[in-house]
Amino acid sequence: MIKAGIIGATGYAGGELVRILLGHKNVEIKWYGSKSYVDQKYADVYQNMFQLVEDVCLDDNLPELAKQVDVIFTATPQGYLASILTEEILNQVKIIDLSADYRIKDVSVYEEWYQIEHKSPQFIREAVYGLCEINRDLVKEARLIANPGCYTTCSILTAYPLVKEGLIDPDSLIIDAKSGTSGAGRGAKVPNLFCEVNENIKAYGVTSHRHTPEIEEQLGYAAGRKLKVNFTPHLVPMNRGILATEYASLKKIPQTDGSLAYPSYEEIKAVYDKYYANEAFVRVLEKDVCPETKWVEGSNYVDVNFKIDTRTGRIIMMGALDNLVKGAAGQAVQNMNLLFGECESEGLTLVPMFP
Amino acid sequence: MIKAGIIGATGYAGGELVRILLGHKNVEIKWYGSKSYVDQKYADVYQNMFQLVEDVCLDDNLPELAKQVDVIFTATPQGYLASILTEEILNQVKIIDLSADYRIKDVSVYEEWYQIEHKSPQFIREAVYGLCEINRDLVKEARLIANPGCYTTCSILTAYPLVKEGLIDPDSLIIDAKSGTSGAGRGAKVPNLFCEVNENIKAYGVTSHRHTPEIEEQLGYAAGRKLKVNFTPHLVPMNRGILATEYASLKKIPQTDGSLAYPSYEEIKAVYDKYYANEAFVRVLEKDVCPETKWVEGSNYVDVNFKIDTRTGRIIMMGALDNLVKGAAGQAVQNMNLLFGECESEGLTLVPMFP
Amino acid sequence: MIKAGIIGATGYAGGELVRILLGHKNVEIKWYGSKSYVDQKYADVYQNMFQLVEDVCLDDNLPELAKQVDVIFTATPQGYLASILTEEILNQVKIIDLSADYRIKDVSVYEEWYQIEHKSPQFIREAVYGLCEINRDLVKEARLIANPGCYTTCSILTAYPLVKEGLIDPDSLIIDAKSGTSGAGRGAKVPNLFCEVNENIKAYGVTSHRHTPEIEEQLGYAAGRKLKVNFTPHLVPMNRGILATEYASLKKIPQTDGSLAYPSYEEIKAVYDKYYANEAFVRVLEKDVCPETKWVEGSNYVDVNFKIDTRTGRIIMMGALDNLVKGAAGQAVQNMNLLFGECESEGLTLVPMFP
Amino acid sequence: MIKAGIIGATGYAGGELVRILLGHKNVEIKWYGSKSYVDQKYADVYQNMFQLVEDVCLDDNLPELAKQVDVIFTATPQGYLASILTEEILNQVKIIDLSADYRIKDVSVYEEWYQIEHKSPQFIREAVYGLCEINRDLVKEARLIANPGCYTTCSILTAYPLVKEGLIDPDSLIIDAKSGTSGAGRGAKVPNLFCEVNENIKAYGVTSHRHTPEIEEQLGYAAGRKLKVNFTPHLVPMNRGILATEYASLKKIPQTDGSLAYPSYEEIKAVYDKYYANEAFVRVLEKDVCPETKWVEGSNYVDVNFKIDTRTGRIIMMGALDNLVKGAAGQAVQNMNLLFGECESEGLTLVPMFP
Repeated sequence: MIKAGIIGATGYAGGELVRILLGHKNVEIKWYGSKSYVDQKYADVYQNMFQLVEDVCLDDNLPELAKQVDVIFTATPQGYLASILTEEILNQVKIIDLSADYRIKDVSVYEEWYQIEHKSPQFIREAVYGLCEINRDLVKEARLIANPGCYTTCSILTAYPLVKEGLIDPDSLIIDAKSGTSGAGRGAKVPNLFCEVNENIKAYGVTSHRHTPEIEEQLGYAAGRKLKVNFTPHLVPMNRGILATEYASLKKIPQTDGSLAYPSYEEIKAVYDKYYANEAFVRVLEKDVCPETKWVEGSNYVDVNFKIDTRTGRIIMMGALDNLVKGAAGQAVQNMNLLFGECESEGLTLVPMFP
Repeated sequence: MIKAGIIGATGYAGGELVRILLGHKNVEIKWYGSKSYVDQKYADVYQNMFQLVEDVCLDDNLPELAKQVDVIFTATPQGYLASILTEEILNQVKIIDLSADYRIKDVSVYEEWYQIEHKSPQFIREAVYGLCEINRDLVKEARLIANPGCYTTCSILTAYPLVKEGLIDPDSLIIDAKSGTSGAGRGAKVPNLFCEVNENIKAYGVTSHRHTPEIEEQLGYAAGRKLKVNFTPHLVPMNRGILATEYASLKKIPQTDGSLAYPSYEEIKAVYDKYYANEAFVRVLEKDVCPETKWVEGSNYVDVNFKIDTRTGRIIMMGALDNLVKGAAGQAVQNMNLLFGECESEGLTLVPMFP
Repeated sequence: MIKAGIIGATGYAGGELVRILLGHKNVEIKWYGSKSYVDQKYADVYQNMFQLVEDVCLDDNLPELAKQVDVIFTATPQGYLASILTEEILNQVKIIDLSADYRIKDVSVYEEWYQIEHKSPQFIREAVYGLCEINRDLVKEARLIANPGCYTTCSILTAYPLVKEGLIDPDSLIIDAKSGTSGAGRGAKVPNLFCEVNENIKAYGVTSHRHTPEIEEQLGYAAGRKLKVNFTPHLVPMNRGILATEYASLKKIPQTDGSLAYPSYEEIKAVYDKYYANEAFVRVLEKDVCPETKWVEGSNYVDVNFKIDTRTGRIIMMGALDNLVKGAAGQAVQNMNLLFGECESEGLTLVPMFP
Repeated sequence: MIKAGIIGATGYAGGELVRILLGHKNVEIKWYGSKSYVDQKYADVYQNMFQLVEDVCLDDNLPELAKQVDVIFTATPQGYLASILTEEILNQVKIIDLSADYRIKDVSVYEEWYQIEHKSPQFIREAVYGLCEINRDLVKEARLIANPGCYTTCSILTAYPLVKEGLIDPDSLIIDAKSGTSGAGRGAKVPNLFCEVNENIKAYGVTSHRHTPEIEEQLGYAAGRKLKVNFTPHLVPMNRGILATEYASLKKIPQTDGSLAYPSYEEIKAVYDKYYANEAFVRVLEKDVCPETKWVEGSNYVDVNFKIDTRTGRIIMMGALDNLVKGAAGQAVQNMNLLFGECESEGLTLVPMFP
């Protein structure tokens, strides 16, 4: 049995980790860490866990926890893990960090977008960006996993094959993303009240959302050069789900007669299949089927598809996932499975719930 | 492996059966029956099943299906199964009927409330009302299971212990129930359009809803005599979930000094525990915690609790379940497990999803 | 022009007062009082008011405000107005209090249910309970109006004619009420976050909700004696609207042949019409039409109807209103119109918005 | 009094026309035309109109209606009006068409995108595209108004000033739009059921939505040349509201020192103000405030704003409106006011409803 601890177990991502790990054959949760609910029964915080979890919330004592478990999930505010992580801890335990602290390799970029001083930049280099479909082999050997952001997972996986294969102009990429409200966390803030979100949609963080540099860095690796994107998140009146609609200029490719033409549906599809046909959690939908967040709800799937517009010379790529599963806790468990030599999909064969 | 067929696999309850059975170790779905989508890929009807179900929808040929499988789930309109069921079929296969056709023992009551002539009343007597917590032993031996209605499962289990133990006046029972919209099915009707349901609540079927006689019959068995209840369903702008708020006059009980007094919280709690402490799927919540439908979403749980009002001499009982799981498909699988000697909770250890 | 001030203008009820008063021909809002947003532009707090309201939020200085305006609306926390109201203020200005401070005549009942010491009980007696349809004449002469609660307005008006005419047993009354989330106010609390409310329904305040004694007092006046009711509120995933489903034992009435029988639909309808046929804001729906909250959204209407159940001897009464309009701000403006000799419906001829 | 008739009064746009016209001082609705509900009381179709509208639905007899009224609103399926409109009718009555039949000047473009043969192309040329802010003077003189589409109104007004002034590259324009579900109409279709829309978001009509050529034509006039855009609509789980997020490459402009640079916030703001500062229904929000659909709900406002991204050289423009008001019925009434010399905002001073 893998012994696991969760720091930040009472946030929405933490709660989802518990839900998923309860269905994992080889994991035992030993520590439900919480800042706000210490000494309260975990099931009093999340009544869905009544009779399923008998434990009481513990504090966020990372050094103590490191001695007791094999893996620690940190679902904590930005900057927290960076402020307390030590070499000693990393020698004792694997860490899967759901915050952004070790996602961005260039510490100055992190500090600029997050407006936080990074307190342990010495660990950034070794941290592996835990997007399993792309960094699977690196993940297996890591001590410290930077679990990707919800928007970024969706945004990157949707465009990755075409960026990697050079079929779109990387500088033309525009990502218009829509998220359910659980992505905003469980903090009590007026803008997240039911009456403010319900019957409403808005963009936010326009030109300044923190997931922008993360997307740029990862897609930059795929492109083989730096790139800049526009990323615009929107808040949608639903609990779960992210949909990314992505626009890019399609490159013309040489035809057998020597001329240039836009690639066909089949050619683009083949590229997606090259990367994803063997992936358990990425589903390239059939022609003309647009991804819907409801079709992946509660599951670890990312549904992707695309539509070519020869009128404008652009391709519209679409991706959908559950922000709390593939966008957070599910991916974290997928990383854990890789780290510990488990079957990658153990605990993650959750059938999407509809309706 | 239990071979299962589903008639009505493309309705919401049918879809939920598929979701649950895909997670059952010992079941293989052999037949996705549908009236509207014959020859279409099942995953084209429910895209959440993409890459999970490769089958094509078949017709509703019950006799043919009976030869091929061990159990048939019928999630069909009222009257349909009754019109085609035969002794020969029942000799070949177990049937778990999610419609109301065999739930009510008195055929005249059925015909009055449903306004349908019952075409095979000869099977009513042997049909077992599949409320597992109450009829567990009978279920195990049955050929034909009448799977209870969504409202009725919730309404009955919430009040059952107190009715059975004679602690409330059965004639005083008033059930005010609230349901998510999936209970109305997937038929395309104006009242179920998003814009008609969203931002709205209404009562419907007031004094005339068909689940009324079903509740009365079952609670009548518990009370040991006939009873009449008021049952009022409401449509709530959410996908899943039923909440039943039930009111009844509490009976005073003899005290040690010979006087009469209302039972205490502890005394009522003990009665609930007597019936439910060992039940896997009924959770009697802690004092003062009101059930919420979100805490059972996606799971087979019924959460129940109560509050005594000595001011008025009444008790308010509350119960919450997911109408598609414990209120339909989950209970059907629970019945199947009993029928086939499986562990009763196999395939049903679904952790409620929050948020 | 009536000069009006609002204390608590930045809560939801305050915001609705502004929306309604902007459409009133003879009112000018002179003071947008707020505790949390002093010195901020009102339209920065409620962006819907951009370019409609240029004012800046002022503090809650009641004595100063009393000198400047003709009427003050107080949409403030329980106990606040009672703690600062003086005879001097009441001599200067009319006050319409949307809190509960002066609704309940028996101060001990108030203090028991609200767990607050009442700081100015000397004004309770003169305060008029501003349920216009019942206390219209008293309202016209008042200095201090206790504007009824949202649940109470709905609950009382739905049952009032039958209680008043003695057609139901007052002690049998059970009120099962369902409310949108704006009734919980704009305070930032976890239980009111979108993800906690959405896809969820729950009862709360069971046997202990503060609107209970208010309903009991007012219906007691109608019945001509004290009575006790069960009142159970529920939180529904929608912004606006209250639906009250009310159950009571119907009394048999003498027939022409001397026997007793339940009153007919027509007889009950006639009683409702007696009280409401001339009321601008109470609509008694046609036979068998159940009220829906969406049909009154944004308007000052209460829609009521009933269904007789001779099987159980009960009547089910239903009422629907918009909690922020007839349940709060609309009724307050209706009271203001009465106080100042305006047409009672001035500013209130808002057509319900559907969908 | 202007006598008005509505063909298609029982759709959502028709219902909204009724709501708005009931509050218009100088209009009397003489004809509630409906295909599906002939001879039924209008208030039975839309119960919010109970006691407000006593009329019965009439058929869609346009020639008869033309004799009786001054203006006809047609909220009918595509192609219907074109198939029955005659010169005689146009000589009798003003027509404001909420369908797309006369919006597109090039009949071949219409027929290609709508896949309908246009039956009266002879009227296309004289029809005035009723986007009041742009074609105000033409509207005043028209016989036939082509009332703009909901998406198009939002999309065009959001980008218009910058296209007109040549500040963005017209070919770079990408419009990612999100709409509430009332835009899909009141037809009973599975994809518009509550359970299919709720907790879900999807793109649809990708590269093929019919509002695309309408946007292209109108913005083409502004640009002074033909242009092509990507327009992607999304379905959002809310009743009302459209949000358009629009991306375009910003042009550098000459500076005082002769160099080129991106325009500043103030420069762009001045351009928006040039076009909209005097418009009653377009609100250019303050810096950094993103439009939200809830802030315009129920009103005729369009809220617009923008954000410059010098990192990518693009500008993100955002616009929000209520699809049933400014996107349909409100704009139709605004056109009617212009046609009949009424104050342009008569009947349209609806304060947005929040929450």
